[in-house]
Parts: sequence; C-alpha cells; structure tokens
Amino acid sequence: MASSLLRWGILSTAGIARKNWQAIRNSGNGIVVAVASRDINSAKKFISECQATAPFDPPPRPIGGYEELIASPDVDAVYVPLPTGLRKEWLLRAAAAGKHVLSEKPCATSAANLREVVSACRQNNVQFMDGVMFMHSSRMTSMRSTLDDGSTVGRLRRVSSAFSFRANPDFFSNNIRAHSTLEPFGCLGDLGWYCIRLSLWAADWRLPRTVTGRLIGQIGRVDSPDPVPTEFSGELFFDDGLSAGFYCSFVSELHQWAHLDGEKGGLTLDDFVGLRAGEELAYTANGRRITISEHAMHHPTAQETRMVRAFADLALGGKPSAFWPDIALKTQQVMDACHRSALAGGKPMTPD
Amino acid sequence: MASSLLRWGILSTAGIARKNWQAIRNSGNGIVVAVASRDINSAKKFISECQATAPFDPPPRPIGGYEELIASPDVDAVYVPLPTGLRKEWLLRAAAAGKHVLSEKPCATSAANLREVVSACRQNNVQFMDGVMFMHSSRMTSMRSTLDDGSTVGRLRRVSSAFSFRANPDFFSNNIRAHSTLEPFGCLGDLGWYCIRLSLWAADWRLPRTVTGRLIGQIGRVDSPDPVPTEFSGELFFDDGLSAGFYCSFVSELHQWAHLDGEKGGLTLDDFVGLRAGEELAYTANGRRITISEHAMHHPTAQETRMVRAFADLALGGKPSAFWPDIALKTQQVMDACHRSALAGGKPMTPD
Repeated sequence: MASSLLRWGILSTAGIARKNWQAIRNSGNGIVVAVASRDINSAKKFISECQATAPFDPPPRPIGGYEELIASPDVDAVYVPLPTGLRKEWLLRAAAAGKHVLSEKPCATSAANLREVVSACRQNNVQFMDGVMFMHSSRMTSMRSTLDDGSTVGRLRRVSSAFSFRANPDFFSNNIRAHSTLEPFGCLGDLGWYCIRLSLWAADWRLPRTVTGRLIGQIGRVDSPDPVPTEFSGELFFDDGLSAGFYCSFVSELHQWAHLDGEKGGLTLDDFVGLRAGEELAYTANGRRITISEHAMHHPTAQETRMVRAFADLALGGKPSAFWPDIALKTQQVMDACHRSALAGGKPMTPD
Repeated sequence: MASSLLRWGILSTAGIARKNWQAIRNSGNGIVVAVASRDINSAKKFISECQATAPFDPPPRPIGGYEELIASPDVDAVYVPLPTGLRKEWLLRAAAAGKHVLSEKPCATSAANLREVVSACRQNNVQFMDGVMFMHSSRMTSMRSTLDDGSTVGRLRRVSSAFSFRANPDFFSNNIRAHSTLEPFGCLGDLGWYCIRLSLWAADWRLPRTVTGRLIGQIGRVDSPDPVPTEFSGELFFDDGLSAGFYCSFVSELHQWAHLDGEKGGLTLDDFVGLRAGEELAYTANGRRITISEHAMHHPTAQETRMVRAFADLALGGKPSAFWPDIALKTQQVMDACHRSALAGGKPMTPD
C-alpha cells in the first residue's frame, strides 16, 4: 500500500461495475488493475468496452476466475458486485487475502453472514463498505446540518421514502434479481436497502426497536426455487417515537422520493437515491429549495466518485473505519427483520 | 325548498364552523339563517363575530339548544361540526326532521352507526355529505384526468400520504380531539380520514381487501376514559395489487403531502388537503408542475366554497346523490378497520 493510488480489482462484470469503473477513473486516487469473470472472454470484452470511454493506463488485465484476482499481489481492494447468494464466500476470501472490500448490496443473505464478513475484515485490518452511493453525496452533509440546526425540522418524527423502478418483462425471466437463490430479498434487497439506509441515517444510526414488513407482490423466474419480493413495504419504530415507512418495488416507474418530517418542519427530496442526470442536487426545507453544486452521476463530483474516493482514502490510510461496516450491518439487520416480519404476516420483529 | 338559496343552520360553534360560514357566504346559493349552541350566548357571540367579516342579511338568529334549530321550519340543511361522540343522535334527528346534513368527520364512532345515519337520510330523502373540502377542488378533477389518460401515470401501484399538524400542549389538556368519548379515533379520525379518502379516490372507490393500522403514539386528557391516537400509520391493500400507506399525527408540524405512483409515472402534491393560502393550486406530474387557478382557501373559488355550493345544489335539486354518503361510509369502514387492526397489534383486517 505504498502507492498513492488504490489498485482495484473488479470481481464480475455486472452492469453496475461499469458505473464504478468510471467512478474509479474519476476518483483521482484509484486505478483498476484487473477484472475477473468466470469466463475470461467476458472480462476482456468488459475491459475493452470500459476502456473506450474511461481508459486506464496500463489497461486492466482480464482474469478468468475470481480466485486468481483475489490472489493477485498487485490488487489492494476488490469491488464485488456478485449476486448476493454468491457473495459471502468471495468477501471472506478477499478479506483473508488482505484485500479491502467494497460490496454491493444487499451485502449478505443474512445479518449473521454479514457479521462473519465484517469480523473477517476487521481481523484482517481491511476496510469494508457497501455500495450505497447516495451516502457520499454532499447533499447528505447539508441535510444533516439542516436537521441538526434545531429550528428547521425540529425533532424528527417520521421518515417516508419510496424507491422503485419498472422492470421490463424480460427482467422476470432473466435477471438475477428474480432468482431466490441469487437474490432472495428481491426488491427489498435491491431497493428497500436504500430506504432503510436513509431511515437509519435520519435516526442517527439508532436501531429501531421493532420493524414490520409486508410482501405486496412476488414473482420468481422459472428456474427460481422460490418467488422473490417484487413489491414490499416496511415500517421502522424507534424508541423515542420516531418512525419510518417505506415502499419499494420492481413494478412501479422510477420513484425515489423521501420526506423527513419533524415537529417544526420537514425536508423533501424528489430523488434521494440520486439516480438522474444533472449538474445540481437539491432538497427542499419547508418549501425552500436548497441546492448543492454536485453532479448527480458520471462526474468527478458525483456521489459514486465520492464513494470510491472515500473508500480509497480509508484503504490507503491503513486504518479501517468501523463506521461503514457498522451501518451496513445495521441496514442488513433491519432488512432481515422486515423480511422475517413479512413472512410472518406482518408481525413486528426486533432487528438482531 | 322553493327558495333558490339553501337555508343553513349551524349546529354548534366549533372553530371549523367559522370557515364554513364564510364558505356559505361565498357560495352564492346558500344563507345561514340560524346558529345553535347549548348556551345561547355562545351562539350570539359566534354570530356577531362572523357577521363582522362575512355578514348575512338578515343576520342569522342565535338558538340555545340543538333541538330547536332542528325543529325550525325555515332551516333546510344543517351543518354539524359537533364532536363525533355526540354526532349520531343529532344527525338522526336532523334527518328525521327532513334536514339535509353536512357532517364533519370522522362521521361516526363506527361504520354501523354511520350506516344508520346514511339510511335515515335516504329514507327521508335528504342529502348526506361529509366535510372533506379537498374533494371539491378542481385540482381533483384535473388529477383524475391525468390519472386516467393512461400514459402519464399508467396503472397506479402505490398511494402515499401524510397529514399532520403540531398541536400545542394545551390541545392535549383541553381539546375534544384528546378525549376518547368525544373523539375516539384521535388523529386517525381527524387527519387519517383525509389520507384514507384520497386513497379510496385514487382507487376509484374500490374498498381495499385488507388494511393494517399501527398506533405509534397515544395520549388522553386527564378527563378522558382512554387515550386517543396521536400518531398513527395505516396501509390499504387492494385486490389488483394497488396499495396505499399513510401517516397522520398531532405531534408533527403541518405536513400534507401525497404521492400517487404508477407503472409509468407519478403525481406529487405538497398540500393535498389544501390547507394554505394562495391563489393557485398545483400538483406535479412526472416533475412537470400543473397549476389550477383556484384559491386554496377563503375565496369564492376555494374548495370549501365549492363544497357547500355543491351540497346546496344537491339539496335544492331535491334528488339526493348516493355518491357522497357512499364514500363517507367507505372511508369510515376503512378507518374502523385500520383502528381495529392497530388494537390487534397490526393484524390485517377486512373493512366491513
């Protein structure tokens, strides 16, 4: 780790990896050195396509198989967008090999599994972080100041959020997110994770006392052992009376709104996940629009760039932060409990 | 009913009656002829205060006691803002006396009670309507066209809404809405009624298959036999997969937002209840702002004026509409079921 650039390896050629390739290119403190796929030709194709728009010099090398990438001495950190059902093994192997780990979400198939991973990262003195980009936007910093000023929102009482996108019909026959072994949480893991994260952020990372979940719709690929959630709602209840409700879905158009309502006022976001183009982010505080000079996506100032930059700073600094694994684990605990609640017909559950 | 003006009697001098006095003054097809209070001096004071800003000629006469007002042959219709716990008796008496009835909400302490009232109104050929003003705004007509155009929102999947206001501490010791005999549903009846109404409107008046409710906070006046809900969330599940979530509260600042999210897009309202000043109402459809030239409040074009005008038109027409009692009853059925669910720890209930 003597280099001032973090040397990244990308484990699998999932679509989201293209965005993070670009983000690493924009980050200024990282370089992609290798991309692994089970089929080396996929890795080659992925690299050649990504190099066309965001080239690294030298070009990253393609690797056939994840093991070899994890064993590579010139790789400091791995980005792991593998399906959730396959991820744990590779996260553990990466940690054991001393690689820092940026993991896509949901991080694991259970909080117990994620605890193992987080613990392995701690033991190996490597950074763990999940791939929730919006957390790194300076919009969150601005919102935090506004929430904490005591007068704009006052004591927070209710967080409401929705995150959905409309999957095309093909999605339900081909996409891993409609396969219960690969992505057992379906839309709850893919989208609800963000709503839960925002709610926990708003609650200053306290865990809710109880949560509920409701499975509104489900579907499974023909080859899926079980259906996965395609529409899901959940609710979080905190000790001081704060509560949070969320809705996530694969069947509704892109919706990504949030409200943070308090005793004195409220904040509103049209796009808390930040999935849109534009050179400016915004939120409203009691109807007043507050803007942030930050590109939403695909730019050196964008949240995904900030994410990989922050991760690389921590990894290069050699002193892993406990904050990021902690909030990933809390998000997983709450998501698990929402899912358990839904399976029990909406019975309140305690995150554990 | 030979007159072209509906002759109104107001039963009690509740605060909301001042707004509706003004609305009747603005309506063009109604006149207040009498105001009853248990104490005639309260009625005198109320009349004199209201006359100062929105005078009727001749001035309405004060009446001590509700019976006399209901027996008055020069009263065609009564507006009843009495507490919910006291309302049924007077609604039934008014209907029996052949008076049209505009009732504040929640209309009754149970759907069974409201069925009795609605049935009595039908038998006596008088109009029944509840006092939900926003229903009468032309914004709803515009939103209905947009929802039904098939392309802007597409099939509706999720309705989300919140309605809250921050009661001052005094409220919880003096206000009838913190007394379980007078207002057993607390914020659910006072505010959740609007959220449920909007959800049923969005669902084209289908009843949900099941609903859930969650009591987040409760409080009771010292003289209240039981606490009443002060923070409540509920969820409605319809047969075709449409669902609706809502939050209502006496402890959060004025929030009155709503989202109607569908497969192709969504509508957003900052103020679906319309509680604000301004010469223009608006909503956004997929981010595009659509404005309606209509004052929000206190104006001949405002929704409360439209409400009493529409009511008077129906009453003067002599052919009561079944629509308004029907949607009031459906709202009550759903509210009751949400409340029952909350008392049963969130167990799904069927409106009946």
